Amino acid sequence: MEKINKIVKNSYVQSLENCRNGDRIEEIEAIQNLIKNSKKIVVATSNGKKFKVVKNIILKVLDTHTNHNTISNCKNNQNNIIIEMLDICTNSADLTRMPALTKGMIAVDTTNADLIIARGRLGVAGSGSLLLIMDGKGRILTGAMSPSSIIHNKSIEHKIEFELLKALEKIGIMVEL
Amino acid sequence: MEKINKIVKNSYVQSLENCRNGDRIEEIEAIQNLIKNSKKIVVATSNGKKFKVVKNIILKVLDTHTNHNTISNCKNNQNNIIIEMLDICTNSADLTRMPALTKGMIAVDTTNADLIIARGRLGVAGSGSLLLIMDGKGRILTGAMSPSSIIHNKSIEHKIEFELLKALEKIGIMVEL
Amino acid sequence: MEKINKIVKNSYVQSLENCRNGDRIEEIEAIQNLIKNSKKIVVATSNGKKFKVVKNIILKVLDTHTNHNTISNCKNNQNNIIIEMLDICTNSADLTRMPALTKGMIAVDTTNADLIIARGRLGVAGSGSLLLIMDGKGRILTGAMSPSSIIHNKSIEHKIEFELLKALEKIGIMVEL
Amino acid sequence: MEKINKIVKNSYVQSLENCRNGDRIEEIEAIQNLIKNSKKIVVATSNGKKFKVVKNIILKVLDTHTNHNTISNCKNNQNNIIIEMLDICTNSADLTRMPALTKGMIAVDTTNADLIIARGRLGVAGSGSLLLIMDGKGRILTGAMSPSSIIHNKSIEHKIEFELLKALEKIGIMVEL
Repeated sequence: MEKINKIVKNSYVQSLENCRNGDRIEEIEAIQNLIKNSKKIVVATSNGKKFKVVKNIILKVLDTHTNHNTISNCKNNQNNIIIEMLDICTNSADLTRMPALTKGMIAVDTTNADLIIARGRLGVAGSGSLLLIMDGKGRILTGAMSPSSIIHNKSIEHKIEFELLKALEKIGIMVEL
Repeated sequence: MEKINKIVKNSYVQSLENCRNGDRIEEIEAIQNLIKNSKKIVVATSNGKKFKVVKNIILKVLDTHTNHNTISNCKNNQNNIIIEMLDICTNSADLTRMPALTKGMIAVDTTNADLIIARGRLGVAGSGSLLLIMDGKGRILTGAMSPSSIIHNKSIEHKIEFELLKALEKIGIMVEL
Repeated sequence: MEKINKIVKNSYVQSLENCRNGDRIEEIEAIQNLIKNSKKIVVATSNGKKFKVVKNIILKVLDTHTNHNTISNCKNNQNNIIIEMLDICTNSADLTRMPALTKGMIAVDTTNADLIIARGRLGVAGSGSLLLIMDGKGRILTGAMSPSSIIHNKSIEHKIEFELLKALEKIGIMVEL
Repeated sequence: MEKINKIVKNSYVQSLENCRNGDRIEEIEAIQNLIKNSKKIVVATSNGKKFKVVKNIILKVLDTHTNHNTISNCKNNQNNIIIEMLDICTNSADLTRMPALTKGMIAVDTTNADLIIARGRLGVAGSGSLLLIMDGKGRILTGAMSPSSIIHNKSIEHKIEFELLKALEKIGIMVEL
């Protein structure tokens, strides 16, 4: 968290001084480290199938020497890693301008997660879907999009997997399934 | 605008009644029509190179029988189509949580555009870029993302072209360059 | 709308050039005029009692030579003034960070109102209430707050009346009941 | 923080189940406790005069047995309480829809404060000022407003003092100067 605060502050100062010149390698690394070292991850869904897809991928990303198979749902393990669903319905987010973002903020505001994965509609009905990876304060670390199901007809699990892998790849985290 | 209001309202009512079941073909069509029939388009940039890339693509999308080559920058033509840059610096948006969205809102709040194309950082420094197509009220119609320039090193013009084509393709508008 | 776009743009340019020096009289006047000349007003509530309180005050503010008593709910009159409730439930807004603002945005996104009055919780549970007067794009023109009902125990109608009169007074519009 | 997470979650669940019935005494108490027990307070301003006004009031509110006069600016004391200005310019916030909120979010995203006091314009130019008390995640705990300086002509220090005392009073914290 502290590291991201500094990264954000530095980028703000660079923008103020008109000397910002694209992203820096240490910024990407700070995002990677925050994700890899997160201890409590909340997936902003109450759908078990969607949760499972996200959990399987995130567990491969976390920095841990544990056998991942021993990390059970919603429970502590030796590494004190918790990955859980949100036990609150997030459908109300669909009455906001950015449903995916609003879902993530429900997780930010009702849990003490240090990493949040949220997915929902990008904007108005028909605008397709957006997956966001956010930190515990709701700052957006990376994300990915899919077209509306009318345009590309794939299973929801397939789309979530595709979006999450792409969001991670975009910040240099490659996952092999 | 009226049509999108109805589309949004219907989707809200469906969500309230728990009977929403994915996007509908008329939602995608309403988005397509709003884009194709827009008369004043503002690109939320003050960079001439970026503007040119966006203008060339948008002109191919608009429903018009005019010879596109006759549509000059920032000027009316017979079809009363205006496509222009924002004559206000949007760097301040980089000190917000979602710079691309904030840039778009600067265009919403300072012009009477009915279509806005905004592009900027997705979230924190290092999170890559986001292009958004918004209507005159700031509602998000579609969008696309690129990784940080550190991850994929392409020219800025190439990336904007890629993002805009993808954002349009996602709602079923195919453009041939 | 056009006038407010210019006011907003000018204030942005002043801020960019570090020459902004407090609010200007023409800014207050532009807000007053927008409110007084609005033709379609939506109150972001589906509660008839709350609506009546707001309607009675707003009708006194509008620039019209009509006998106000002849303006019926949700109907056109000679001046083409419409003032109506939102026929969509806004409770979902209470699952967002700023419920009052979110309610207002539901009105912005589902109607073609040019003036919106929204009221709801300011922030987290316990933070008291916020009334906002917004334009058709969702820009905030003025507002007022009340403490939580636990701190000041008055009827809801009394509080709404107090907040709306205060919000109007703050921009120089005095209403006599 | 944990306590507020629970308060927020409970209020969300109550709203979902349509059984929310106004604010509860424990919600106000949780807000009071969060404010009184905060250890790092950031005032989202870089203006020394404004900072001093806020600091003097906040120190009276904090739960501490120290002699307040020994708490120096931006320095640790025995109680490990830090109260400091933001060392980053927040003028860019004036190019957003809610400048006061945006200033607060700059403090949230660049510091590890657990309490933030932000003040700025409510909405569009002319809409008057808003003071917000936020927690470390940017959740709004309470707030207060003043009219535009054109409507009520008082010194800026006087207005900030008035707003902060009112924001605290609204959640049941009375301060004697």
